[in-house]
Amino acid sequence: MTPEQTQMLDALAPQLERKSIVTDAADIAPWLNDWRGRFHGAAPLMFAPSSVAEVSAIAQAALAFRVPLVPQGGNTSMVGGATPPADGRAALLSLRRLNRIRSIDAEAGLAVVEAGAILADLDDAAQAVGQRFPLTLGARGSATIGGLVSTNAGGTQVLRFGTMRGLVAGVEAVLLDGSVHDGLSALKKDNRGYDIDQLLVGSEGTLAIVTAATLRLVPAVAARAVAWVGVSGPDSALRLLRRLQAATDRVESFEILPRETLAAAVAHLPGTRAPLDGDHAWHVLIEATAPSMDGETPAALLERLLGAALEAGQVEDAVIAASEAQAAAFWRIRDSLSAAERALGPATQHDISVPVETMPRFMIDAARACEVRFPGTHASGFGHLGDGNVHFHVRAPQGTDPARWYAEDAPVVTRFVDDLVVAAGGSISAEHGIGQMKIGELERLSSPARLTILRAVKTAFDPHGLLNPGKLVTLARAGVTP
Amino acid sequence: MTPEQTQMLDALAPQLERKSIVTDAADIAPWLNDWRGRFHGAAPLMFAPSSVAEVSAIAQAALAFRVPLVPQGGNTSMVGGATPPADGRAALLSLRRLNRIRSIDAEAGLAVVEAGAILADLDDAAQAVGQRFPLTLGARGSATIGGLVSTNAGGTQVLRFGTMRGLVAGVEAVLLDGSVHDGLSALKKDNRGYDIDQLLVGSEGTLAIVTAATLRLVPAVAARAVAWVGVSGPDSALRLLRRLQAATDRVESFEILPRETLAAAVAHLPGTRAPLDGDHAWHVLIEATAPSMDGETPAALLERLLGAALEAGQVEDAVIAASEAQAAAFWRIRDSLSAAERALGPATQHDISVPVETMPRFMIDAARACEVRFPGTHASGFGHLGDGNVHFHVRAPQGTDPARWYAEDAPVVTRFVDDLVVAAGGSISAEHGIGQMKIGELERLSSPARLTILRAVKTAFDPHGLLNPGKLVTLARAGVTP
Repeated sequence: MTPEQTQMLDALAPQLERKSIVTDAADIAPWLNDWRGRFHGAAPLMFAPSSVAEVSAIAQAALAFRVPLVPQGGNTSMVGGATPPADGRAALLSLRRLNRIRSIDAEAGLAVVEAGAILADLDDAAQAVGQRFPLTLGARGSATIGGLVSTNAGGTQVLRFGTMRGLVAGVEAVLLDGSVHDGLSALKKDNRGYDIDQLLVGSEGTLAIVTAATLRLVPAVAARAVAWVGVSGPDSALRLLRRLQAATDRVESFEILPRETLAAAVAHLPGTRAPLDGDHAWHVLIEATAPSMDGETPAALLERLLGAALEAGQVEDAVIAASEAQAAAFWRIRDSLSAAERALGPATQHDISVPVETMPRFMIDAARACEVRFPGTHASGFGHLGDGNVHFHVRAPQGTDPARWYAEDAPVVTRFVDDLVVAAGGSISAEHGIGQMKIGELERLSSPARLTILRAVKTAFDPHGLLNPGKLVTLARAGVTP
Repeated sequence: MTPEQTQMLDALAPQLERKSIVTDAADIAPWLNDWRGRFHGAAPLMFAPSSVAEVSAIAQAALAFRVPLVPQGGNTSMVGGATPPADGRAALLSLRRLNRIRSIDAEAGLAVVEAGAILADLDDAAQAVGQRFPLTLGARGSATIGGLVSTNAGGTQVLRFGTMRGLVAGVEAVLLDGSVHDGLSALKKDNRGYDIDQLLVGSEGTLAIVTAATLRLVPAVAARAVAWVGVSGPDSALRLLRRLQAATDRVESFEILPRETLAAAVAHLPGTRAPLDGDHAWHVLIEATAPSMDGETPAALLERLLGAALEAGQVEDAVIAASEAQAAAFWRIRDSLSAAERALGPATQHDISVPVETMPRFMIDAARACEVRFPGTHASGFGHLGDGNVHFHVRAPQGTDPARWYAEDAPVVTRFVDDLVVAAGGSISAEHGIGQMKIGELERLSSPARLTILRAVKTAFDPHGLLNPGKLVTLARAGVTP
């Protein structure tokens, strides 16, 4: 432990529950690396507070003794956002024990949830009162509300209800000086200056420590239908989406993938077959839901709308899952795509977005540009077409040594892809955040105004760089004005 | 002119169009007072740039010569937010010539609009392509997009599509150093750090100068229906709203008013009669719309739902406007309420919000508390019940000298009402902003954490206090951390 860490520990020991202080290396070890094993950190000390008052005391001590704090929830970051620096000077701040669902109001459609509560547990609690929390992602069994808020998480269900940003009605957070911002009173209108709650959404623990949030719920799903559709290309897929959206607001997922990615998934998942018999260059998974059994069912709705699209020549073929088991099988294919692609060999993965209308063109053009620039590679994207967000992968030429690829080629490929994204007016991080993985690229590719603002805001909240150091943005060299 | 203003003018004269510089006192005079005549300022110099490059040059000169800038659009602020300080040291920065609609994309439902464009003109342009901009308010013929963005404007149509915050997909703004933040590329997902665009929404020109915004459009209205409903109280009104919302998402307005306010409006508007024959303690105006003529019409929808509510004893009486003329007459009553109440004598007006579920109770309890605390006054609220936002008025006892009321009583009443709002977990500014009118109350009633953050962010963008001085928040005395 550094002298500062020791001082901090001595000051806090009388104030905190015994369980809120962890110094046993074996207990800390699981939290020092990211879940994919790409980022490795060190910390001899972990706090695991069980109350906001404890978080406040920890923040004040961190400031007093200048000990960096790395807030951590489920540790499911895709960009090393919750892994401490390797120098061992920081303390981990686990929010996992601060995990109560403080209240659920089905009438108002609101839940007040602490940072450490797990996404799946919130959804279960909402379902118990006839509601649901309409955001889901692969890590739903371990990702925490605090992490989801702090990274503005997305997922496969963003199309209708938005990312976390749209689902957060208010935030409770502890500042470094120990004071508590209480934004939990869910006001539909509030013009008391800058929107502090939304500023904290997506701030990756670099401004304050999110301890709770008021979240919007929506009525539970009474019926759903899942369709699999074959189309000629991303442009016809987008036209199909526009046709559906003009007719209904019940479409919650619209995921696109190319032929090769489907083949990889079928090969990767034992006992799986492609949902459609024929061969199609591109595939789309569509989910529609209804909050009640009244009126047209989602299956009838999709049958009607997809039938019209078939007649109009907009889609090549379509099938609607005949049972919940078949619907689950369609989703299992979608959820396996990342793993299936990884099994094909080393690749770079890019979580990127461009304006929705330009995504079809981008997917084709960017793939071709990569394959021309890096001969032997195979490039393609799959994912959330309706959000203008795909996961774009560039697979190394067959036989490439993985170590060489990741050390030498991958950074060059990443810069090339990021340049294409910026040229298309897009974002190099659509939903995963910046963390430590993309901090260099963010700095390289941001406009002077963006960098100035990010640094000025960071410095305003945390002038000593104590909150989640090395993530998102470095401190200001100077403010907006000299 | 101050020496600093003269230096600024000399530096800018060679860089700007002649029309972009206004020094004739007669041309400046109309912009020195707010439209209600409550706030008065002075400025010997006004800039009226016609390009973003000119705004950038003006910002740099303001910084270089330390001349405060007061950005101004239509000058329709309710809180003195666009009136310059009285010391004459500032320059007005009119965005009214920067008024192009740069693009409208009906397919994507997006428009890129410059700050000086007028709300009604944007809506007209959207209607021309089968879309609309779903936000409206009394000043729609003069309020500008830049002002609406900078104040996160609301209005009578927030229920379904939200305030400006929800309609802004991105912002273009000039920082004091002259650099331009370009957030106009409308990305549905973008996690490159703090949400700069949303931070600027509602920042009242105190952080940067908004020059354009990308705004969301929605399909034009093909049919609408307007209903007038008599209910026993705000609680039954809210239950009615919940009933409607559970059955449809087509309700766009839900405005409540008490018997006395209706009577005042009928007395105030020549040739007007109350929509319902019977006597009801509370009244509700409801508007429902449809984007096409297919399926159930809005009138049939409201008839069905209000019929069921009548049968369930939830409403006392209801009438659906039989013609567009009658619908307009209902709305004319609603739109005259502020003027009608003003005609009754001196009063304090409070634009406040509390959580939606607690608003019915608050309206009753707060009115009673005011009338007990200030004998002879009459207190009541009307407005956007579904947003948890009413305009709460406390009318002076009959015969009160207006001058004495505004000078002595009104501040005491305001503090009393604001205390009630804060106790209810609400906001002392729901939609009008803080400006100069509420800056003292915001300071008095904000938590230490809120004030710390507001000041730290302000100081990060504008350490010399040059942007819209005296509005929203004062500079930081210290940052978040000493």
